[in-house]
Order: sequence, then structure tokens, then C-alpha cells
Amino acid sequence: MTYCVGILVKKGMVLICDTRTNAGLDNIAVFRKLHVLEIPGERMIAIATAGNLAVSQSVISLVTEGFGEGRTISDTSSMFETARLVGEAIRHVYNKDGAALEAQSGGFDVQMLLGGQVKGGRLRLYQLYSAGNFIEATPDTPYLQIGEHKYGKPILDRSVTFETELDEALKLGLVSMDSTMRSNLGVGMPIDFVVYRRDALETDLIHRIEQGDAYFSDLQERWSKALRAAHLAIPVPPYKAEEDEAASDTAPADTS
Amino acid sequence: MTYCVGILVKKGMVLICDTRTNAGLDNIAVFRKLHVLEIPGERMIAIATAGNLAVSQSVISLVTEGFGEGRTISDTSSMFETARLVGEAIRHVYNKDGAALEAQSGGFDVQMLLGGQVKGGRLRLYQLYSAGNFIEATPDTPYLQIGEHKYGKPILDRSVTFETELDEALKLGLVSMDSTMRSNLGVGMPIDFVVYRRDALETDLIHRIEQGDAYFSDLQERWSKALRAAHLAIPVPPYKAEEDEAASDTAPADTS
Repeated sequence: MTYCVGILVKKGMVLICDTRTNAGLDNIAVFRKLHVLEIPGERMIAIATAGNLAVSQSVISLVTEGFGEGRTISDTSSMFETARLVGEAIRHVYNKDGAALEAQSGGFDVQMLLGGQVKGGRLRLYQLYSAGNFIEATPDTPYLQIGEHKYGKPILDRSVTFETELDEALKLGLVSMDSTMRSNLGVGMPIDFVVYRRDALETDLIHRIEQGDAYFSDLQERWSKALRAAHLAIPVPPYKAEEDEAASDTAPADTS
Repeated sequence: MTYCVGILVKKGMVLICDTRTNAGLDNIAVFRKLHVLEIPGERMIAIATAGNLAVSQSVISLVTEGFGEGRTISDTSSMFETARLVGEAIRHVYNKDGAALEAQSGGFDVQMLLGGQVKGGRLRLYQLYSAGNFIEATPDTPYLQIGEHKYGKPILDRSVTFETELDEALKLGLVSMDSTMRSNLGVGMPIDFVVYRRDALETDLIHRIEQGDAYFSDLQERWSKALRAAHLAIPVPPYKAEEDEAASDTAPADTS
């Protein structure tokens, strides 16, 4: 399993990825799933991957080493063209490996987040599917997730908007990652992330958070404490009192 | 889709269920999925259902009207025997309808939470699967979920223990329900719940929370505000500063 989240805000973008891969619970490993191509002043392209690792590693090799007419993500003219190139690479791998993967029951499964900016173009964040097609994040829905997306979605749904500050977006992404790691053992430390400021054309920060990291541990603890305080601060449900007042409104038992 | 959660604590149990059913997004309806059998002083048995509604309604009819040797959940001698009876009813429906359901591609899918107490026995909370087998909640893992369980799990993982007060358990279950409803349109109002105090042998409260309910709206708003305050209170990630200090520790770009 994997969890990656990309958040696109007014001031930039963050892309956060765990590093755990597993072929069954008895075979887990650490692999980088966040790949960054940076040509300062010219382009910054980040790719996060989920799904079959053999597939995603092949795709990354194809788009960095070149395939077809030798094109790579270093020489695309826009992010849209970059997304199309990555999508083509996914189809290329499918054409080569898809049948064998399906025959061995694994199936062909890959998902990617692709975010970045090419000089002269806008900062864009895409999600690519196994078919090589893709969607783009917009101010209405400024985040995209791949892999185990459900556990970490509620906090994003409630708190992330296009106006969210870049630091806040990173914090919220880390909280979302923490929620996911607590509920799914297939998602685990260390955590890789990249922070990009709109129009900078170079990364603001590429970092790996290792197990035991002081800030991340503090974030986890503060978040847990705050949640505890939050539910304790909510008044006790009043329903009992209401029912006593109007017992006839509520059926005492329902055996239907 | 459906979301039901049962929480078993020292002082009792709560069972909470949404009421939305859907056969596609274009066909949604309201159905009660929480069924309570109460014989005050003798037994209190609550069943929450998820999965195929035709299957779960048949199972409820069988165990309340009687099947096989005419046994019903009104005359079982213990909760364990009750769980076995409900499991048998699931298998009974599978034997009758399973093949046809599988042929029509819907498949045979039903999950249930069964909680309650029979005089002379302990309060117990079970989760039953499509095969009619079941597991029981314990102090280590005092809650069970069926249906769309992922969105509402992080808050339970962080906050629910066997020592949680009954009112708190209800609040936390409602927060969990709220998180689920926000992220999955297949889960919706109204919300049914039952509260049972250990050894009471009658329900403490059976209630339906309707759309616009003042307490639930307040809970939703307080929770959202508290989450916002919680992430704002977490310090800004310090990683940038660290990287500046030790730039050689972090690769500036990774094109592998």
C-alpha cells in the first residue's frame, strides 16, 4: 500500500509520500515513491507513485531516460505535455507488461500524482490513472490523493482550501499522513515531501522525515491531544432529556 | 452504502447507523438499518445491518419470525447463541438467494453488528460476516464497524477505549458518522442510535437524529472549528531551517 497526497494552493504546492511497499504483510520494504526533477529557473517536476512498484519504476525510468522519440520530462514544453508523456509511458508499460501481470492475477495497477511548473506555464497538479488518462486539481478541489486515500481524507475535506497557506498545507498533509499510518500498516515512515512556491521554478524544500523526527512526533502528539480536547469540549448529547419530555415521539422498541 | 458503528465500553454500548440506501447514485432512499428487540428485564438485542438490503431484511425477518425449528432472537439463552442464530439465518438466505445474486453480479454481501445482553449473561458486541461467522469486540478493540468504515475510523482509533464514558462513546460515534457522511454521499441522515447501560436489560435510549437536529449541527460545527484551531495551533514545520543548516544531508534533486 501507499499514501500520497498533493495539495495545490495559491502560493504553491506540496507533495507528500510515504515510503512503505509491501507484497503481503510479511514482506515490507522502504522505497522512495517521490521523484523530483529540478532544473532551477527552467522547470520543477515532481512525481509521486502508487500501485505496482515494478510498473511505476518502469514509468519513471522511461520518462527520465527517454522513450518513443526519446522524449523525457526534461524537455516537455508544458505541464500538460508532461502529463501526456507520463500517460504515454504508462500505456507503454501496459502494452509490454499488462497481459503478463493480468495473467499472474496481480493486474495492472498504477496511479501517479504529477505536479510542477515549466517556465512560461502555470503550476499544475495532475492525477494519472492506470489507463494513462489524468485529471487536474482546481481551486474547487485543490488536493489529490493516490493509494490508501480514505483515512486521511476527512481532515483535508474539512480544512484545505485554495487559500490555505503553504506551511499550513504541509502541516495538514502531514496530519492526513499520520491518520493514514495509524489505521493502515501498509503505509509507513519515513515520509518524503517536496514544497514548491509558485513561479519559483525550483523546489523550496525536499525533505525526508525519519522515524522519531522531533517535529513530526510533536505534531502527532499535539493532534491527538487536540482531538481529545475537542470531543471532550462538545456538550453531552441531550437526547435522553428530550425523549423523557416527549416519549410518545420515539418508539420504545422496534422489532421490525 | 451504509455506515454503522458499535462501541462497547465498561458502562455499556452504543450502536449508531445511518439510514441511506442506494442502488446507484440516482436511486437513494431511507431505510432503517438499526433493529432493536427489547424485553425489559429479560433481554435487549440490537442489530445493525449493511450490505444487500434484501438479504439483511430477510435475515431480520427470519430471526424475529422464526425459522428452522422456529427459534427467534426472543428465545435464545445467551448472546453467543443469538449470534449463532443470526449467522444461521445469513446462511439460510445464502442457500436460498446466493446463487441468483451471484448470477446477477450483485454477489451475496451482508454484514451485521449484533449487540446486547440476555439475563444471566454478559453484554456482548459481535460483527457477523456474509459467511455467517462472527467476531466479538473486546476491551483491546472495543468498537466494530460495518459498511463504509474508513473515513470514520481515525477518530475511533485515537479516542475510544474500553474506559470511555457512555456519553463520550455516543459523541465519538456521532463524530465518526459525521466524518463519514462528509466524504461519502452513500452515507446520510437521518441517524438512528441506541444506547444501552450494562446490566440494565432495557435500552437507555433509542433515538433518530433528523436533518437539522440542533445538537448534531452544533457538534458538527464545534468539531470543524476545533480541528481548524488544532492544526493552526501546531507550529510551522521547521524543515526549511534544518535543511539550510545541513544542506549536504538532503539531496537537492532526485531524478532516479
